[in-house]
Amino acid sequence: MADTALTPEALLAHWRGHRRLTRRTIEAFAERDLFGFTPTDMRSFGAMMLEVIALTKPVVEGALDGSWHFGRGGGDVEVSKAELLVAFDEADAAIAETLPQVPPERFLEVDAPIPGRSEPVVSTLLYFIDNEIHHRGQGYVYLRLLGMEPPPFYVR
Amino acid sequence: MADTALTPEALLAHWRGHRRLTRRTIEAFAERDLFGFTPTDMRSFGAMMLEVIALTKPVVEGALDGSWHFGRGGGDVEVSKAELLVAFDEADAAIAETLPQVPPERFLEVDAPIPGRSEPVVSTLLYFIDNEIHHRGQGYVYLRLLGMEPPPFYVR
Repeated sequence: MADTALTPEALLAHWRGHRRLTRRTIEAFAERDLFGFTPTDMRSFGAMMLEVIALTKPVVEGALDGSWHFGRGGGDVEVSKAELLVAFDEADAAIAETLPQVPPERFLEVDAPIPGRSEPVVSTLLYFIDNEIHHRGQGYVYLRLLGMEPPPFYVR
Repeated sequence: MADTALTPEALLAHWRGHRRLTRRTIEAFAERDLFGFTPTDMRSFGAMMLEVIALTKPVVEGALDGSWHFGRGGGDVEVSKAELLVAFDEADAAIAETLPQVPPERFLEVDAPIPGRSEPVVSTLLYFIDNEIHHRGQGYVYLRLLGMEPPPFYVR
């Protein structure tokens, strides 16, 4: 068996820690700013989070059995903060339910999540987690620009 | 042996891909903005990168043999863009040289990188990589606020 730098259980714990921090970041936004604050025409933090939410289930289901089925994303609507948090928690539940079902050998298997992109399944998962970290970092600047305090990065 | 979601080699490749993107993000800043742009009193992107650079060697050396020796960080000086890139490349070289020497069993070993924080070595490494992704995401917003185009996130 290959050397292990990270176990599937640790990957899940890592991801869920980030999700908790992202949730606190959403909560730190005032309702009006979540979709209303778009400095220099950048996407709102709410739109970025809708993208993350819309892709979560396809990512974990593709990781499970190769049934990659990414849709259009989903950042072009606007929902309330409460609705966003409900959708975020539903995505969380999909992670918690589906990731532990992924057969251990799947993580190192090379698959093609989108045409033209071949990589081990774990790379697709990490890419997606990193995308969330990236957008959350952007959200931290938005919050500072709005005079709000982001949640502490080191608390997961 | 434990199930493998990620091998040490894949972790190194993952990290190095992020480093390349971070380097391009530094390059995208104009010289004067790297340390001069501090919206609403946030740290400059240059200061964030000096922090990342200063911690890189301590992180990989601690991962190697437990000799954790974090210093003061190092974000309170100001250097030229060329000097920052040289320091960034030196930190890269430390990763490329030291990480492959880390014994495979070290990654899952629980260690204490700082007093009061006990975690597998891989968690410390991922935390540090994530910190870089986080700050780079902040840098993307800085660039947009400055009217500059950040490098594409998906290119590593």
